[in-house]
Amino acid sequence: MHAKYSELVSAFSFRITQRDGLARRGEMTTPHGVVETPAFMPVGTRGAVKAVTAEQLREVGAQIILGNTYHLYLKPGDGLIARCGGLHRFIGWDGPILTDSGGYQIFSLAAMRRIREDGAEFRSHLDGSLHHLTPERAADIQARLGSDIAMVLDECIATPAPAAAAREAMERSVRWARRARARFNQLRESPGDVHVTNAGQAQFGIVQGGTFPDLRTESVQATVDIGFDAYAIGGLSVGEPPEVMYEVVAHTAAQLPADRPRYLMGSGMPDDLIESVARGVDLFDCVLPTRNARNGQLFTREGPLSIKNARFAEDMSPPDPACGCYTCRGFSRAYLRHLFLAGEITGSTLNTVHNLYFYLDTMRRIREAISLGTFEKLRQEFHQTFRRRPQH
Amino acid sequence: MHAKYSELVSAFSFRITQRDGLARRGEMTTPHGVVETPAFMPVGTRGAVKAVTAEQLREVGAQIILGNTYHLYLKPGDGLIARCGGLHRFIGWDGPILTDSGGYQIFSLAAMRRIREDGAEFRSHLDGSLHHLTPERAADIQARLGSDIAMVLDECIATPAPAAAAREAMERSVRWARRARARFNQLRESPGDVHVTNAGQAQFGIVQGGTFPDLRTESVQATVDIGFDAYAIGGLSVGEPPEVMYEVVAHTAAQLPADRPRYLMGSGMPDDLIESVARGVDLFDCVLPTRNARNGQLFTREGPLSIKNARFAEDMSPPDPACGCYTCRGFSRAYLRHLFLAGEITGSTLNTVHNLYFYLDTMRRIREAISLGTFEKLRQEFHQTFRRRPQH
Repeated sequence: MHAKYSELVSAFSFRITQRDGLARRGEMTTPHGVVETPAFMPVGTRGAVKAVTAEQLREVGAQIILGNTYHLYLKPGDGLIARCGGLHRFIGWDGPILTDSGGYQIFSLAAMRRIREDGAEFRSHLDGSLHHLTPERAADIQARLGSDIAMVLDECIATPAPAAAAREAMERSVRWARRARARFNQLRESPGDVHVTNAGQAQFGIVQGGTFPDLRTESVQATVDIGFDAYAIGGLSVGEPPEVMYEVVAHTAAQLPADRPRYLMGSGMPDDLIESVARGVDLFDCVLPTRNARNGQLFTREGPLSIKNARFAEDMSPPDPACGCYTCRGFSRAYLRHLFLAGEITGSTLNTVHNLYFYLDTMRRIREAISLGTFEKLRQEFHQTFRRRPQH
Repeated sequence: MHAKYSELVSAFSFRITQRDGLARRGEMTTPHGVVETPAFMPVGTRGAVKAVTAEQLREVGAQIILGNTYHLYLKPGDGLIARCGGLHRFIGWDGPILTDSGGYQIFSLAAMRRIREDGAEFRSHLDGSLHHLTPERAADIQARLGSDIAMVLDECIATPAPAAAAREAMERSVRWARRARARFNQLRESPGDVHVTNAGQAQFGIVQGGTFPDLRTESVQATVDIGFDAYAIGGLSVGEPPEVMYEVVAHTAAQLPADRPRYLMGSGMPDDLIESVARGVDLFDCVLPTRNARNGQLFTREGPLSIKNARFAEDMSPPDPACGCYTCRGFSRAYLRHLFLAGEITGSTLNTVHNLYFYLDTMRRIREAISLGTFEKLRQEFHQTFRRRPQH
């Protein structure tokens, strides 16, 4: 189904096949296969998308997954993974993988962090051990992991941030991006002590600048000047209102090269995905479908549904009657509520299967609508029924 | 694949198709399908076999699963399950289900228990609430659950037990069995307030008597006199040495009706299964494959393997190179070790898939060997490699 290592294609490429307004349908080719865009990447934090197997990921329609460099670097370690043949072999997933740089987890998880010009110093949330991540090191680690797409190390800041702080972080991220690109190019020429599992790896730059349009514009220009395989919009989905996010996404996406994929990092709710596609975004990742599944929140076309609610105690209908996933085909709200209240692992699995299917099916419907020129209709219909908060 | 409710066959039946020594191969027909014996039943304590889905159960070869009456009675309640259409519909498993009577969990789990002639009084391990389970009530609850096979309430005691205590519990279990059978027959005639989800349900009696051959003989005679669809050997696998268990199994099985299935309750290690088949047992259940999976112990033909062992850190071979399960076909010891140490749910799932496959594949090989008349050869070969304790 997917390329063997010996048959890996050497280059990353992207081709837009259809447009509908600002929305684009395309094909992103990676060493481990083609990703149809717009696409959503389930998050496989520590080498597994929580509560599901690779087979279940395929069944729900996952084309590409995301791995967290911060977690994998700390445990089991990028060196171990490289010696085991790289991340794909290690985790038994032969489809495309994108790895982040670790920057966001240092910002959100580490026990201590200190940002200096050369990089980020932090203490592990696992054991308090001291680590130093530089733009070069983040590139090296991802080369060892052998992901299909590597991200540059960027500096994440809390929002709302004052303009001066946002500028400082944005400018440092640009300087780091330059160093990350240099290291990436150098690794391509001579991998040195870095275990070569990364044939054909692509590297994406990240646009920062908080919610300030002028900073975003500057960041786009400087990052595109460096020249990456594609570009991500970072620093959003961190608490700002959706309208603000949509505005920044629209402003930023419009300035990014039209012929490269645009990746909105860490976002978001299902309506965020649709609104961002409407503004020209091609790629997404988010922990919401998986994390909320484990917390008993199931996504439906009417919005999230809290499965522990007493009204579902004897409700033998599936979570979402319109859904075609394994969970909805065979299991009831009453049963999923029981499994959740009993703390059964199987409940986490069934909920995760449903939520991922919902997200990935939404992306399928978006791609289809773009092909048919009916994206705007889909968008309106989606908003007519979908509510961001549980209605029951 | 399995009978719809409208097509349920009305009667339980058992047919022996081949014999090899004392080992028997057979077909046990239940309202929800045929079970090829000797068979192993994965334990679905609270309406789910922990960490796997019904689909994964099918894939590993499960033909029949066990549900725990104690757990289901307390949560979500047999009334709720009956109103949801019975246990099969509630949990989304359309294959055969056997339910125990709750007696063993009262003995092993309840916060307090008091055995009186009329039944067992106990406090829930969940909330301390007071409950009273009688032989009649255990039959009613299982009728509401609508399992294919119901077990009579018996009195379980700790071993080693003095002969007097073993006799007392055995004799009470016989009196309870008589009442359970009367209630079962009465329910068949007029289900009354018991929701009728149990068309065609069978009821098994349980032989007690600890490790005392004369008590076992008495128990067999009295229980067979009452007359059940089949007979179980209870009160074993509770800490006695394997040789003692094998002796009691041999002694008891030899006296049970040859034309009815013989079910050894709660047992055991893989070699226990083979040794019990060699003594004429047809049916097994045990939490070992599922519980040990979650604790990182994987069964192989050489014995259990502790996946957290440091020697597996970079071992890219599958848990058992001779195994054909989903886990062994796609994942390495190194990865499973990582998942276990990281506490990833996916690790529990992959380990459970492997262990259940190992148990169920062992049963498949046993059945095949009986057909070929090579059971004794299989038994010897098994013991040549299998060690009960982890070798590494």
